Amino acid sequence: MTTVAYLGPEGTFTHAAALAWPGTTPVALPTVQDVYRAVQDGSVDRGVVAIENTVEGYVVPSLDALLASDDVVGIDEAVLQIAFDAFVRPGAGELTEVSAHPHGLAQCQQFVARTGLTPVPAASNAAACRDATPHQVALGPRLCGELYGLETYERDVQDFAGARTQFLLLARRDDAREALDAARDAHGARWRTMLAVTPVVAGPGVLARILAAFGAGGLNLSSLITRPLKVAGRYVFVLTVDAAPVDPALRAVLQGLLDEGHLLKTLAAFPERADRAVVLDLDHVPSGSVDGTAAPVDLGRELLW
Amino acid sequence: MTTVAYLGPEGTFTHAAALAWPGTTPVALPTVQDVYRAVQDGSVDRGVVAIENTVEGYVVPSLDALLASDDVVGIDEAVLQIAFDAFVRPGAGELTEVSAHPHGLAQCQQFVARTGLTPVPAASNAAACRDATPHQVALGPRLCGELYGLETYERDVQDFAGARTQFLLLARRDDAREALDAARDAHGARWRTMLAVTPVVAGPGVLARILAAFGAGGLNLSSLITRPLKVAGRYVFVLTVDAAPVDPALRAVLQGLLDEGHLLKTLAAFPERADRAVVLDLDHVPSGSVDGTAAPVDLGRELLW
Repeated sequence: MTTVAYLGPEGTFTHAAALAWPGTTPVALPTVQDVYRAVQDGSVDRGVVAIENTVEGYVVPSLDALLASDDVVGIDEAVLQIAFDAFVRPGAGELTEVSAHPHGLAQCQQFVARTGLTPVPAASNAAACRDATPHQVALGPRLCGELYGLETYERDVQDFAGARTQFLLLARRDDAREALDAARDAHGARWRTMLAVTPVVAGPGVLARILAAFGAGGLNLSSLITRPLKVAGRYVFVLTVDAAPVDPALRAVLQGLLDEGHLLKTLAAFPERADRAVVLDLDHVPSGSVDGTAAPVDLGRELLW
Repeated sequence: MTTVAYLGPEGTFTHAAALAWPGTTPVALPTVQDVYRAVQDGSVDRGVVAIENTVEGYVVPSLDALLASDDVVGIDEAVLQIAFDAFVRPGAGELTEVSAHPHGLAQCQQFVARTGLTPVPAASNAAACRDATPHQVALGPRLCGELYGLETYERDVQDFAGARTQFLLLARRDDAREALDAARDAHGARWRTMLAVTPVVAGPGVLARILAAFGAGGLNLSSLITRPLKVAGRYVFVLTVDAAPVDPALRAVLQGLLDEGHLLKTLAAFPERADRAVVLDLDHVPSGSVDGTAAPVDLGRELLW
């Protein structure tokens, strides 16, 4: 049986994500760093970590752990709708409090206001469900009801529907090729690759030239962030490219970057899931943006030039 | 007296940041959105929000609020060392618990383990200090000791020194020009500008061409992230440029982008603070990165091509 480590306790959103890979046994660990270590040292077969969500963007501590791990790589993804159910103990008494992680309470403000319950912060939503008193409503993933023998008080109490989190399935790098080959046989042609590119030199135009190489290869970038290095002014670029690393077009771009002296690392490669909705977030162009047809006074006001 | 809104309760790191602007009266508000709204509707003169930190990267909800605000712009920055002190009530009894926001508890794990106190999550570090019982150690910014009449139990109990958060001072857009002109007289020549660039077309190479324009203008980008729009495949790019919007070189680049039809908005413009250390984070090039001199087997292992 394949073991899959995740950030516990049982009933976290990461636990729910781990269940997306059938035929695996989830193993709760205390921290995200423990998950990376367990994969690296072989004490589990796989790991699951949150990597990006529609509200917060990249989960930077997880991304940094992936950057810092020599022998761990993402080989699959799962995208999970972030929804909260409200639970109570069977035969609960008078309800006076509502408990969740402070972020969970913040994501269910309307429910908290409507019920008039006193918010009680918990270390995690799963812990709030596990430790719910007879006077508390606990907020957490649907999974927590069955896990902790709770009754559903109300479903989908989050303020905003549609929040999603992307999770990566982690493997040891030496096991990755075999897993990716199997996935390539099972899935269609749409792949994504997360790359870390550390430019050999700093300075104006470096990122532009690197990105131009991808553009010249006809490769779309679906996300990009810069992460600072301790060396002043030096950065690593984390790019997600809509291609697999074995695709000739991407391979040619990577070879070109190597030829220019840049340092590269593939952080993850995975088939794009059929059920993957586009990551939603901002509704609109940033409010107050101007284009070249704007009057000089509006250009001055919006650009402050 | 200039009023400055910040995310309360009193004693948050944002409150501490607000004190970096002398001669102002800080006003605690319940949420970050309230801070943006209060600046926009003129009920306060200024606002302070966290925008980027060395551990989590951009504070995305705050960044998104800035993108969505038509009439609010950043006009100054403060960079704060994130340090926790441990506090107790005067004449405290036997200490059995340690209280902080779950993130605060996570950032002081060594203190928690060493003292053997039971961690108790709080809605915020400031709330933990405000509400500390005689049996609790509360963790929070130094400011909380005096604010809440607490005794210092131990200083600097965070696991890692050196974490820093950048805060922006927000103003109404119509007040920004005057404030920036005054700052330009008072400060040196090093400025930064945060820009939102929404490309008029999507597709491979768009970001590369936009960045190439900055590179050709000799302008350094110190950070860049992409934020998705609800329209599939469309993004807004948030760039920080080492120049002021009134600098001829930056103005020329912005005019060029406008001429190509892109949408622009200046999110913030501020003098680089003399006490600003470079943002530190990752120690090293991502572990396991390869360059063009690597053996084919290592290239294959690290790149999965």
